[in-house]
Amino acid sequence: MPPTLGQNQYGKAETRVLRVTREGAVHRLRDLNVSVALSGDLAEVHLAGSNAAVLPTDTMKNTVYAFAREHGIASPEAFGALLARHFVASGPAIRRARVRVEEYAWERVPTTGEKAHSFVRAGNGTRTAQVTCDGGECETLSGLTGVTLLNTTDSEFRGYLKDRFTTLPETGDRVLATDVTAVWRHAAEPADWDGSHAVARGHLLAAFAGTYSRSLQQTLFAMGSAVIDNLPGIDEIRLSLPNKHHFLVDLEPFGMRNEGPDGAVYIAADRPYGLIEATVLREGAEARIPVDLTNT
Amino acid sequence: MPPTLGQNQYGKAETRVLRVTREGAVHRLRDLNVSVALSGDLAEVHLAGSNAAVLPTDTMKNTVYAFAREHGIASPEAFGALLARHFVASGPAIRRARVRVEEYAWERVPTTGEKAHSFVRAGNGTRTAQVTCDGGECETLSGLTGVTLLNTTDSEFRGYLKDRFTTLPETGDRVLATDVTAVWRHAAEPADWDGSHAVARGHLLAAFAGTYSRSLQQTLFAMGSAVIDNLPGIDEIRLSLPNKHHFLVDLEPFGMRNEGPDGAVYIAADRPYGLIEATVLREGAEARIPVDLTNT
Amino acid sequence: MPPTLGQNQYGKAETRVLRVTREGAVHRLRDLNVSVALSGDLAEVHLAGSNAAVLPTDTMKNTVYAFAREHGIASPEAFGALLARHFVASGPAIRRARVRVEEYAWERVPTTGEKAHSFVRAGNGTRTAQVTCDGGECETLSGLTGVTLLNTTDSEFRGYLKDRFTTLPETGDRVLATDVTAVWRHAAEPADWDGSHAVARGHLLAAFAGTYSRSLQQTLFAMGSAVIDNLPGIDEIRLSLPNKHHFLVDLEPFGMRNEGPDGAVYIAADRPYGLIEATVLREGAEARIPVDLTNT
Amino acid sequence: MPPTLGQNQYGKAETRVLRVTREGAVHRLRDLNVSVALSGDLAEVHLAGSNAAVLPTDTMKNTVYAFAREHGIASPEAFGALLARHFVASGPAIRRARVRVEEYAWERVPTTGEKAHSFVRAGNGTRTAQVTCDGGECETLSGLTGVTLLNTTDSEFRGYLKDRFTTLPETGDRVLATDVTAVWRHAAEPADWDGSHAVARGHLLAAFAGTYSRSLQQTLFAMGSAVIDNLPGIDEIRLSLPNKHHFLVDLEPFGMRNEGPDGAVYIAADRPYGLIEATVLREGAEARIPVDLTNT
Repeated sequence: MPPTLGQNQYGKAETRVLRVTREGAVHRLRDLNVSVALSGDLAEVHLAGSNAAVLPTDTMKNTVYAFAREHGIASPEAFGALLARHFVASGPAIRRARVRVEEYAWERVPTTGEKAHSFVRAGNGTRTAQVTCDGGECETLSGLTGVTLLNTTDSEFRGYLKDRFTTLPETGDRVLATDVTAVWRHAAEPADWDGSHAVARGHLLAAFAGTYSRSLQQTLFAMGSAVIDNLPGIDEIRLSLPNKHHFLVDLEPFGMRNEGPDGAVYIAADRPYGLIEATVLREGAEARIPVDLTNT
Repeated sequence: MPPTLGQNQYGKAETRVLRVTREGAVHRLRDLNVSVALSGDLAEVHLAGSNAAVLPTDTMKNTVYAFAREHGIASPEAFGALLARHFVASGPAIRRARVRVEEYAWERVPTTGEKAHSFVRAGNGTRTAQVTCDGGECETLSGLTGVTLLNTTDSEFRGYLKDRFTTLPETGDRVLATDVTAVWRHAAEPADWDGSHAVARGHLLAAFAGTYSRSLQQTLFAMGSAVIDNLPGIDEIRLSLPNKHHFLVDLEPFGMRNEGPDGAVYIAADRPYGLIEATVLREGAEARIPVDLTNT
Repeated sequence: MPPTLGQNQYGKAETRVLRVTREGAVHRLRDLNVSVALSGDLAEVHLAGSNAAVLPTDTMKNTVYAFAREHGIASPEAFGALLARHFVASGPAIRRARVRVEEYAWERVPTTGEKAHSFVRAGNGTRTAQVTCDGGECETLSGLTGVTLLNTTDSEFRGYLKDRFTTLPETGDRVLATDVTAVWRHAAEPADWDGSHAVARGHLLAAFAGTYSRSLQQTLFAMGSAVIDNLPGIDEIRLSLPNKHHFLVDLEPFGMRNEGPDGAVYIAADRPYGLIEATVLREGAEARIPVDLTNT
Repeated sequence: MPPTLGQNQYGKAETRVLRVTREGAVHRLRDLNVSVALSGDLAEVHLAGSNAAVLPTDTMKNTVYAFAREHGIASPEAFGALLARHFVASGPAIRRARVRVEEYAWERVPTTGEKAHSFVRAGNGTRTAQVTCDGGECETLSGLTGVTLLNTTDSEFRGYLKDRFTTLPETGDRVLATDVTAVWRHAAEPADWDGSHAVARGHLLAAFAGTYSRSLQQTLFAMGSAVIDNLPGIDEIRLSLPNKHHFLVDLEPFGMRNEGPDGAVYIAADRPYGLIEATVLREGAEARIPVDLTNT
């Protein structure tokens, strides 16, 4: 018996679009990376090479640019929704459209006078959004990635399971650092997507900073809870937190103590790293965000 | 009501281990990148910071190295299975262990005499394996990533859907190139993991080369079918194929024709790119491989 | 005749050190990537494998950590100078030591109360420093890399040379964007390395923003001149500025105009890119900064 | 006094061109990344924004594609020479043109029948070439980068300098691994650029494999000497060899010995790494290759 076709999707990935808006001498910009994936009744193209039901990915790219011109980019979520609603209706075979957006942040270069058209890219993380439309039903996720956080104290790690391969000493004071990837799901759409994102981001940072940490898992749950507690429209958040290890350097061979009230020196390590991932939910909410946000 | 904890997992990612085996003057090596993720009854560490049920990720790293010494690395799949079976039994709270392995291939540097201890890294793709044990039940996936393929002809693209944003001209002869990421699931374990992987890889390449392509979807299905048809122990394969566009350069402004029996010149483009993903199944088999192999 | 040995150098590259300083509940940090290269009378190790004159690179790494503990990190330049002076005197064979430092910037996460030990990494560029000691003579370079700037207007490009391969239309209004890599040489050491760096960075950004640009070369020269004009201790600066092209999308096929007072839509392109490099000197100063700051 | 302009150059970097050649059903390809840099009497564009002497970088890109069509790509060196000779004569202001080429290697996918148009990219390193024309005088460099080599034995490291920061134990048997970057200079042009490159590459690998190593410096000199000794047209070679450390894992805490006739287990480390760089010259030859091949 011949093999059968399972889940399939196709689209254009990583269309890079910059939208400039001018109000006299004051300019604003939105800088996005847009990836589209469509699925539906597409067996014929796989089995027989018939493209009759296929909207070319080149056309998707064109549509991203044309929509950015025609409708502007109010926010990554709003732009994603425009596109997803368009694509899910783009052909009789298409049942589902998923649009993923990365947004790169820019800050103004301070200038004198009325002119305001100069920008410097802010590197502290990328904002993300995903809108998926299944027929007429759409769901929006917001998130961020690449936000690197570090606490120089108020983190310990002890009381853990030991076995024959344990060598790690317990510690009452360590550096705790991570690169936040977070995705949250909106049960209700906020009136202001940018404002909502800024508030969620602020709570994630404040919870990381304000939690006395006995484990990165505890810190993760505090971060997720802060978002659920403070943003009533968000029902679910998933966090993926690598433990970016900073090891205290052993300076004893040189007759030096690497501790004390004046601080210490750490090795910023690359690999391997711990990886802590969990979902935090509003009581009674359904878990819908995929488990694997990253590929490791 | 306080937020609740959903799916969670933790582990050590990207432990890099080189295992050298010596048989007199002839040496062999295995070069792996190992990532472990455990899950189970771990609410306490998230909610209260109690590490009583937590095997530190540092211990996982130690275990990878100790097992590589004690048991050797017969194959990525066999080594992953050893580790997954160990970790799923590593504490009363642990219910599930997933071990992901990347293997980097090395070839021998030709030398004269009996000595054989020199290697050059082969860059044509990375072999992958994943073993997941849920209690006593284990499942093994094999795969590869980063294998870049290109056909200079026997690829066309026409007969597709047009709309107001269509500008792409139809073509009867184009370059078709992709970077293969593939994952396949073993219903029955092969006697020889290395041999099975080499056979599957060979069929993927042969099907890419041997298929006259009307769409990348058709090529994908042919590649997946070749594996299902030829390896009876494999029930399911998922492929993620970016369409690495090579555009014919427009040389008309310079009075030149960029076609003909002697060949042509192409722009090797970076972004955006098409992305084609699908699962191919043995008739009646269950689809179990996750849909998103990559994060785009 | 046997081959002869030419210029040679060796050292430890990319030692990653985090230095935390505590003043009660207020913590500060310096996060560096340090690379050391030594040269001198090292023929014996190349020709005969004798390591008698070789300070192991492992010892260099240890020294970086020990010095960070013992002396602290006042600035990348000051720390580089401490290390370079140490290494140039580390053995009778060593004549020259070059220490390169990258510094990653962190900002405080705002918190309430007295505690101040939480940081978020700022991504808008990396600060660089290089100290080279040749015997007792030392020279210091400061710089930055990865600072991405963009002007949405006040940039044109016309009046250029045409030949049979010219297709680019002239333009009176384009987006101008670049990723600044800059290195400057101090003829006199500033009292405050951090302050001097901030002032230089500020002038680079202000000159980019404030220059009406007829070419990226002109903008480059304005940026370099601003530093030379405003920082009397700096005699030379070299800039490497990729032209990160943002192409106006052609929306005519869709019956749309992509221009006008309300803004426009651009393709943010990856490759190829223009690359503009030049040195700007104080009148009469010697050019000493190497020509190739990057490898492209 | 106003600042003055020093060395400057500009051009188009990273033009990606694929050239397909057809001989009936048998196809061949060349896959290049081309970067052009021009310099000359270009003060006006920097000081006044006049582009009268400026050949746009967009035109350089067009020229790369048009030349690939018109002249074909016989080798990276020959194609670089065609372009460099063209660009150095492209305008009255231009005095010097440097063309850098990276070539990505592809191998044939084995197929049956007469057809031969399917390729798989070989990942074991990138071939490089650089042609610089100063007026009518041209100089050609060839090279490679990203070739990763590893010896599992016949490497020791002892007898080195000790100081108060030394902790490294001496070893009589270690893994030696590196990522070769090499650039060599042709005093006389070979009849066959591809053949010459293959021979040079072969000697580099054979010398790495065949040298009993007391230090990576010694191995480097042996590798460079092998090229100088065996290729009479090459007068100079520079090598940059990171020491990709593979540390023996300490398994004593687990009661295990990590050594013996049956092999051992190593940590493949990322950072920091040693970096060994040197030039090897034919007796009496001038050293002309720049000292810094990489940016670390």
